[in-house]
Amino acid sequence: MRTREAETSAGEPIDLPSNWGRWGDDDERGTLNLITEEVRARAAAEVRSGRAVSLAVPIQPTPFISGPFAPSTSDASPVQQAMVFTAYPTTAAADVLVVTNHHPCSTHLDALGHVFVGDQVYPGRPVSESMSQAGAHHGSTTAFAAGVLTRGVLLDLAPNSQLPDGHPVTPDDFDAAEDRQGVHLEPGDALIVRGGWPPASAIGQQRPGMTLDAVRWMHRRGVSLYAGDIGDAHPELDPALPAPLHEVGLARMGMPLIDAAHVDDLAAVCAELRRHSFLLAVAPPRVHGLTGVPVNPLAIF
Amino acid sequence: MRTREAETSAGEPIDLPSNWGRWGDDDERGTLNLITEEVRARAAAEVRSGRAVSLAVPIQPTPFISGPFAPSTSDASPVQQAMVFTAYPTTAAADVLVVTNHHPCSTHLDALGHVFVGDQVYPGRPVSESMSQAGAHHGSTTAFAAGVLTRGVLLDLAPNSQLPDGHPVTPDDFDAAEDRQGVHLEPGDALIVRGGWPPASAIGQQRPGMTLDAVRWMHRRGVSLYAGDIGDAHPELDPALPAPLHEVGLARMGMPLIDAAHVDDLAAVCAELRRHSFLLAVAPPRVHGLTGVPVNPLAIF
Amino acid sequence: MRTREAETSAGEPIDLPSNWGRWGDDDERGTLNLITEEVRARAAAEVRSGRAVSLAVPIQPTPFISGPFAPSTSDASPVQQAMVFTAYPTTAAADVLVVTNHHPCSTHLDALGHVFVGDQVYPGRPVSESMSQAGAHHGSTTAFAAGVLTRGVLLDLAPNSQLPDGHPVTPDDFDAAEDRQGVHLEPGDALIVRGGWPPASAIGQQRPGMTLDAVRWMHRRGVSLYAGDIGDAHPELDPALPAPLHEVGLARMGMPLIDAAHVDDLAAVCAELRRHSFLLAVAPPRVHGLTGVPVNPLAIF
Amino acid sequence: MRTREAETSAGEPIDLPSNWGRWGDDDERGTLNLITEEVRARAAAEVRSGRAVSLAVPIQPTPFISGPFAPSTSDASPVQQAMVFTAYPTTAAADVLVVTNHHPCSTHLDALGHVFVGDQVYPGRPVSESMSQAGAHHGSTTAFAAGVLTRGVLLDLAPNSQLPDGHPVTPDDFDAAEDRQGVHLEPGDALIVRGGWPPASAIGQQRPGMTLDAVRWMHRRGVSLYAGDIGDAHPELDPALPAPLHEVGLARMGMPLIDAAHVDDLAAVCAELRRHSFLLAVAPPRVHGLTGVPVNPLAIF
Repeated sequence: MRTREAETSAGEPIDLPSNWGRWGDDDERGTLNLITEEVRARAAAEVRSGRAVSLAVPIQPTPFISGPFAPSTSDASPVQQAMVFTAYPTTAAADVLVVTNHHPCSTHLDALGHVFVGDQVYPGRPVSESMSQAGAHHGSTTAFAAGVLTRGVLLDLAPNSQLPDGHPVTPDDFDAAEDRQGVHLEPGDALIVRGGWPPASAIGQQRPGMTLDAVRWMHRRGVSLYAGDIGDAHPELDPALPAPLHEVGLARMGMPLIDAAHVDDLAAVCAELRRHSFLLAVAPPRVHGLTGVPVNPLAIF
Repeated sequence: MRTREAETSAGEPIDLPSNWGRWGDDDERGTLNLITEEVRARAAAEVRSGRAVSLAVPIQPTPFISGPFAPSTSDASPVQQAMVFTAYPTTAAADVLVVTNHHPCSTHLDALGHVFVGDQVYPGRPVSESMSQAGAHHGSTTAFAAGVLTRGVLLDLAPNSQLPDGHPVTPDDFDAAEDRQGVHLEPGDALIVRGGWPPASAIGQQRPGMTLDAVRWMHRRGVSLYAGDIGDAHPELDPALPAPLHEVGLARMGMPLIDAAHVDDLAAVCAELRRHSFLLAVAPPRVHGLTGVPVNPLAIF
Repeated sequence: MRTREAETSAGEPIDLPSNWGRWGDDDERGTLNLITEEVRARAAAEVRSGRAVSLAVPIQPTPFISGPFAPSTSDASPVQQAMVFTAYPTTAAADVLVVTNHHPCSTHLDALGHVFVGDQVYPGRPVSESMSQAGAHHGSTTAFAAGVLTRGVLLDLAPNSQLPDGHPVTPDDFDAAEDRQGVHLEPGDALIVRGGWPPASAIGQQRPGMTLDAVRWMHRRGVSLYAGDIGDAHPELDPALPAPLHEVGLARMGMPLIDAAHVDDLAAVCAELRRHSFLLAVAPPRVHGLTGVPVNPLAIF
Repeated sequence: MRTREAETSAGEPIDLPSNWGRWGDDDERGTLNLITEEVRARAAAEVRSGRAVSLAVPIQPTPFISGPFAPSTSDASPVQQAMVFTAYPTTAAADVLVVTNHHPCSTHLDALGHVFVGDQVYPGRPVSESMSQAGAHHGSTTAFAAGVLTRGVLLDLAPNSQLPDGHPVTPDDFDAAEDRQGVHLEPGDALIVRGGWPPASAIGQQRPGMTLDAVRWMHRRGVSLYAGDIGDAHPELDPALPAPLHEVGLARMGMPLIDAAHVDDLAAVCAELRRHSFLLAVAPPRVHGLTGVPVNPLAIF
């Protein structure tokens, strides 16, 4: 397990956690390799009632409306919809969609090749071979397209509340949540974080975000997958450093990220049931070669 | 529970199973109403090892390649991908997708309003109010967007083999499979059918398909959701009659359909484990107002 | 030349001008048939300096921007643009566009089949045969795709000013403009109308529009093509009657319409040169089977 | 007027024609600056009968067809069309298009920023400032969006025939055509070249192409715009050198290119009329910020 270096704004070298090489030079699964048979069995044991909660933000598509009296602005939805003419007379309704993957209001799974480290992608493959106009050939959604199952653990960092503006999330926040909730995240588990910040575009906001130490904690604890309503801070906590979740967690640790998760419903159910672990089922449309894909993660109790 | 009428080619009136009105005049969930707490608990009890199998056909997107030496034909993939220029120099890869929902090679969930009965959609709402260029306002994916969980039962109609060309599937096929497999489909379960026909376009093929009696069997048995590699026959079994799955099952019974499911992997695992029931988790991207949506159904053992 | 009937709100039958059958039952060119060799020569004689003026509204495309900090609304532009990743390292820039033809801010040419008369399109062909999900098979842009040239005549109905809100344009407006400008529109000419209303969405506006009598004047005078910043009124002048330009001019007379033309620059040049006729060159992208197509009409002096 | 250097495969430095700086550091029109009032008047004088010929390849769009029995491949057309559902009952037909600009079968105008010289675009602006995911901010179609008019001169390099496979076009070809046709290309004229090679994808073909000397000839003669059925050779004539038309003509000389022009009809009319010059009207949809745009150039006689 190599580590790779960066520098602080003061010019001091710092170590960044990395899994480049840990599972071979061609690996495309990253920390999903931590989900062993034993982890899956632990996840299965969480299922009792069959109650499920969605971790996805509802998306209202923007229509391709035209005609002389169409509106002059539209929501920048991740999905645009053209209802299609199927026949005359019409006996069925169908549609064509235009989907913008990496959208701030779309709950989506980032593929490992989405973010580069210089001219390489995880775990050290050249970008020039991995990405072309014909799609992503390495580090794409292909690796995750048959679905991911593991135990999920919710850490609610601000129960019934919201993290303060610009709050830098540290290991202390995680440790406190584990203590408060009486839960312990094990290697191979998915970490679900709630900070009380609904996914939204960030104009004028000071969104809280992960610190490098928070990501180091994930590395140490063996997080297989990250999902949350807290991502990388905006504005950045320290512009001299790589973005902790995307440039370190995703690109160096190979830890898939679910951006823009909706976790308030989950937190309510966890509080009601007094448990914060569950089976997490992640089943994006089985599309190969993408840099990311919309997903509707389900927590199953 | 009303029934609605059609006529045979000989002009004789026939009864078609219908749930219009059964769950109220505004219902959008159809047979998903059959998934009670008890059904979900039965589904949960199926989960032991956490092993999961995808029921989705892998999709290889077609790139928007241009330039002087681009190919002159392309696969008619359900997904087209434009890799996008994010910045210069480039530090991340992203993409925009164009998605055709109702595609023969896309595993997708049909919404109840997809198919009309005259100028109405389930359960009797006018098309003119339900569908517009701004999307589907009734009978859309909104009803399913938070995910569907229930017990799934696989009926493999042709183990290690393929149904004959043009085979009309009848209740006898289902009863024989239940006996052979030692499984019984209960009300609220999802029915997964394998006929050994990989999803594909049908040029020159005589694809097998459901008969009206097969759909009546589903109605009687309380199927909540249908998925399979067998759909409506092509060419039609009897052009004078409505298409059994789409015009009766979906449009009249309000039974959501997963078209173009990939069930060979599932059949292999069921055979290996010697059981044909499991937790079925259906979690399409949480997009409202569509007539259908790509999905990656997971069978969890 | 048949005429077809409608009724006033008082229930009185009225005659509508029509060219159905005038140039045969399969005609797709409509009033462009009026552009004879003689008309073209008259148009050619207008060309002296080679100065050209565009009659198109500039379109600023909306980008498919994503990422965590994308804006939450966007302009409803007729064109959306995805800049594409061409290679790494990047040596060229390219893009993919999504185009909404019939958009209030897009200068576009309507094809004759765009608007139906009951279940028929000009000149009496069934919609069911003319339109399918595979495109327009009759009355499409195919007929115009090699370009249209004729003499254009600008009638400026409100020089240096704007027609009043909701003004119903009548033959008197045209006659007055001809007198004022010393120009006479001849059969086969294109009519360009300026009312001083920039194309825009119409929320809360009372846009002026053509009356049925204005369209009858065009019929009498042999207008081959209509372009203007005035279209059908909004709100409608008389909801009981067909929309004069689109339901009568386009659908019954077979007169192609250029919606949302930008004519202020043209009016300024005409005033400067003290002539209101010119060669009009209309050269949309040569795409077949569309219901309309963006166009950049040039007035050449 | 600077020149910029490259090297032959033997390592010898070579001069490349360039207009970087010739019209200022912010210029976006390139050789269109050569179209003076005098040139336009000369162009206007070519117009006599008003007869027009399109230089665009007809495009048959590919439909977004879905449903169980859709075809499994489709033509890689530059335009894809979704016929849209406008209302129920349906009273009009409309469509949404997806357009791939730089397509081998689409007659399109390349903007000056389309091809980079290292990390700069014409006339020396940094790519990082000129191109973003929000579009092209310098060297885009904005410069040409109001249309281009000039005199066009057709040089038919292989009358009633086809250039040999892989033929390297040189100044001799141009000089011979001028002599044969009795025409002389003047500064500011558009050069239209016919080699008898219909636009098509090039699998297995040895398409003829321009040499660096041919492009130097264009530079010397003051060509304002290039269009033709001959582009850069494929395979390249000399892989060590920059592509003559795209990397030198477009990117260094700032000479806009119309790729994939259809010139057989034009050649036939020129032969019939025994003249090879005409008014060339280029009027792409008036869309700003693109790297290229479909166009239907008209030769007007």
